[in-house]
Amino acid sequence: MKREVERRQAATPNEYRHAAEFRSQLRRFLRVSEEAARRHGLTPRRHLLLLMIKGASDGSESSTVSELCARLYLAQSTVTELVQRAETAGLVRREQSDQDGRVVHLRLTPEGESRLAALNADLRGEREALSRAVAALAQSF
Amino acid sequence: MKREVERRQAATPNEYRHAAEFRSQLRRFLRVSEEAARRHGLTPRRHLLLLMIKGASDGSESSTVSELCARLYLAQSTVTELVQRAETAGLVRREQSDQDGRVVHLRLTPEGESRLAALNADLRGEREALSRAVAALAQSF
Repeated sequence: MKREVERRQAATPNEYRHAAEFRSQLRRFLRVSEEAARRHGLTPRRHLLLLMIKGASDGSESSTVSELCARLYLAQSTVTELVQRAETAGLVRREQSDQDGRVVHLRLTPEGESRLAALNADLRGEREALSRAVAALAQSF
Repeated sequence: MKREVERRQAATPNEYRHAAEFRSQLRRFLRVSEEAARRHGLTPRRHLLLLMIKGASDGSESSTVSELCARLYLAQSTVTELVQRAETAGLVRREQSDQDGRVVHLRLTPEGESRLAALNADLRGEREALSRAVAALAQSF
């Protein structure tokens, strides 16, 4: 009940200023990230694909197409195509599951690993800066 | 010197997991924000345009095209077109500067104000959730 009331509250000028600053920081980060990805010969989506495989939440450094759909908020057809292209480009490889032959685990190739590592080093500072900026803004929400 | 060394450091598995979670949270937020914008009849970019005007950092609730370019990280030609279309759609109006007749300040129309307010109320919870998630991740970077 309380939540519903809060949701409908009119925004103060201050809230708009904070929301605008928040979105401007996100725009900046995404722009820098896209430029860095392209410098390393990766499209922004391909960069995220490699990162989601390598940074799988279970620590396995591998992922299935379904898991990638859930983490990237993309449709199955989009992810399937993204994976196929990354495979053709030599960045990702398929591995049949030992437990279930129908399940395919995706892993990075050495080339995929090295491009992601270089890109990650370039973006580390930006990610930290965005986190700090958002954390500071979060105090004021 | 220290900074340069840190930048080149190889990432640990933990850093990749955090970076992946961070990007997944951003993807989620942007997806929800885009869907909310469309529900209120706004493209994602038009939503950001209205927000940047209303949430101008100087508290004037108005903005120039140059200021918008800087905050949205978009080219002048892109912003100019975005503004023209928002004006045609009755969401934004132009106002000549008192001080300098060549400078045009952009403001929201009542229709622009009301759409932004409704969208902002829809997104308030998501923005807070993302801020908290990013702030929590920032602790671990």
